[in-house]
Amino acid sequence: MSGVLYERVALIGLGLIGSSLSHVMRREKLAGRIAGYARSAETRATAKRIGLADEIHESAVAAVKDADLVILATPVGVYGKLAEEIGPHLKEGATVTDVGSVKSAVLRDVAPHLPKHVHFIPGHPVAGTEHSGPESGFAELFTNKWCILTPPPGADAAAVARLEKFWRACGSNVETMTPAHHDMVLAITSHLPHLIAYNIVATAADIEDVTNSEVIKFSAGGFRDFTRIAASDPTMWRDIFLSNKEAVLETLGRFSEDLSVLQRAIRWGDGDTLFNLFTRSREVRRGIIAAGQETTAPDFGRQPGKK
Amino acid sequence: MSGVLYERVALIGLGLIGSSLSHVMRREKLAGRIAGYARSAETRATAKRIGLADEIHESAVAAVKDADLVILATPVGVYGKLAEEIGPHLKEGATVTDVGSVKSAVLRDVAPHLPKHVHFIPGHPVAGTEHSGPESGFAELFTNKWCILTPPPGADAAAVARLEKFWRACGSNVETMTPAHHDMVLAITSHLPHLIAYNIVATAADIEDVTNSEVIKFSAGGFRDFTRIAASDPTMWRDIFLSNKEAVLETLGRFSEDLSVLQRAIRWGDGDTLFNLFTRSREVRRGIIAAGQETTAPDFGRQPGKK
Repeated sequence: MSGVLYERVALIGLGLIGSSLSHVMRREKLAGRIAGYARSAETRATAKRIGLADEIHESAVAAVKDADLVILATPVGVYGKLAEEIGPHLKEGATVTDVGSVKSAVLRDVAPHLPKHVHFIPGHPVAGTEHSGPESGFAELFTNKWCILTPPPGADAAAVARLEKFWRACGSNVETMTPAHHDMVLAITSHLPHLIAYNIVATAADIEDVTNSEVIKFSAGGFRDFTRIAASDPTMWRDIFLSNKEAVLETLGRFSEDLSVLQRAIRWGDGDTLFNLFTRSREVRRGIIAAGQETTAPDFGRQPGKK
Repeated sequence: MSGVLYERVALIGLGLIGSSLSHVMRREKLAGRIAGYARSAETRATAKRIGLADEIHESAVAAVKDADLVILATPVGVYGKLAEEIGPHLKEGATVTDVGSVKSAVLRDVAPHLPKHVHFIPGHPVAGTEHSGPESGFAELFTNKWCILTPPPGADAAAVARLEKFWRACGSNVETMTPAHHDMVLAITSHLPHLIAYNIVATAADIEDVTNSEVIKFSAGGFRDFTRIAASDPTMWRDIFLSNKEAVLETLGRFSEDLSVLQRAIRWGDGDTLFNLFTRSREVRRGIIAAGQETTAPDFGRQPGKK
């Protein structure tokens, strides 16, 4: 038990991450009181009904009043506007953080709107499921996953240490890096995989020789695995790609080059090139399992036939 | 219970599919006796130790002797040689089938070597996990999955019906189509997804700005999902790509075109194109879950932190 780390926490956004944070903060008693805000009336109503926060507000400004920790957990595309709104109303000495999948753009969009008397420490818990909305959260989402913090140069050491303690209490491991490095790491480990997944789902849906019903029926051959991450929230992902353009285009260029090599190997019947590349992949998989980021359960442990 | 459908079954190849077939045939008592063959002495020793078949043979010829059903379950690249070997030793009236992921090439490589007095009915159970080898099989692998049969024109209707009954008794749904259509359906639902998965794992491993240790640590952001299917058997997959070249290159061409559209949308900041495409993907995912080919459990139901 860490005990209360922040007397008053404002959750700005109550989707998968926001609601999971609410559950884990309560389980670990990390916050004295949780104030929540969501843009849509529907989300606010659901949040009230399931008791996601001690108070649900109709404006972000009201939610951040007197908050010791403000967590931005909306799609990153609205961060700038939100920061502009809440900036003048932040408590002196408060910590402002976020959970967005991009960090350079967040620093660019948010920092100019914040007063000097708050600690802005961007963050990113690398955890998620394909579900979204206030009812999709669960306290275990962050367990044994990594949270990346990107404190600006000169950030207050005590404020950073407290936020790190907070994430560890949520079950995460914590690592610190620069925003630029974060954006490249996530471009290859998260953004490009999502882009590829969305793309192959579209290609399959459009191919005229194969019906959509066939694509669905025979999806157990591999396609199914891609559809999971391609079911993630479209608004969130639109914002991520627009906000991490350079790193995504860089990794996408490399991916396309590598794919051309494979394409050529198939066209020319070069089995050795294919075999060697396919063998290397197994090593990476073993590394991921050894690092506790995945189980060895075959087929992800799904029960055949169960819905 | 279907009762014994084939008095004597020869399993040529004892990997994931061969061993799973052994387990389900025994559970459902579909075979009077199972004879097994594997090329490697190690696999044969393991198969003996865990009792995968009633007899384990050192040659395919010995295994198929008197068999009423012969199932080829090796990588497809060795089918031609195997068929040449076993052709003269097949029992009159026997059914020969296979479990390979390509069907036109199988027909081309196998049919010429088989005597007129056997029924050759190629098949493909669309089921699998990322594990391989004689110890990876389990009886439930085929439950509620689809098995595609591609009987040649003029195939014996009774022999086809019996094989269909066999697969249904294994838990599968059964569909019949032409080899060419099968190959296009599988190119988009299985072969292209595997190729893309293998490719992105290689791209991530080679990118110099991000260490392999970082790729592994932060894989929960999406990359992890690709590594599962990229951990499949390299020999099997090399053979599949070399044997379904045209259909794979056709789908790969479409994939690359579609990817260029997304790349351009990111470069030009065209959020609407991204949002609309990302929204369509969710529909396909819902279809797959409704068809019982996947569960709705978030994150594939994996327990966070468990190995």
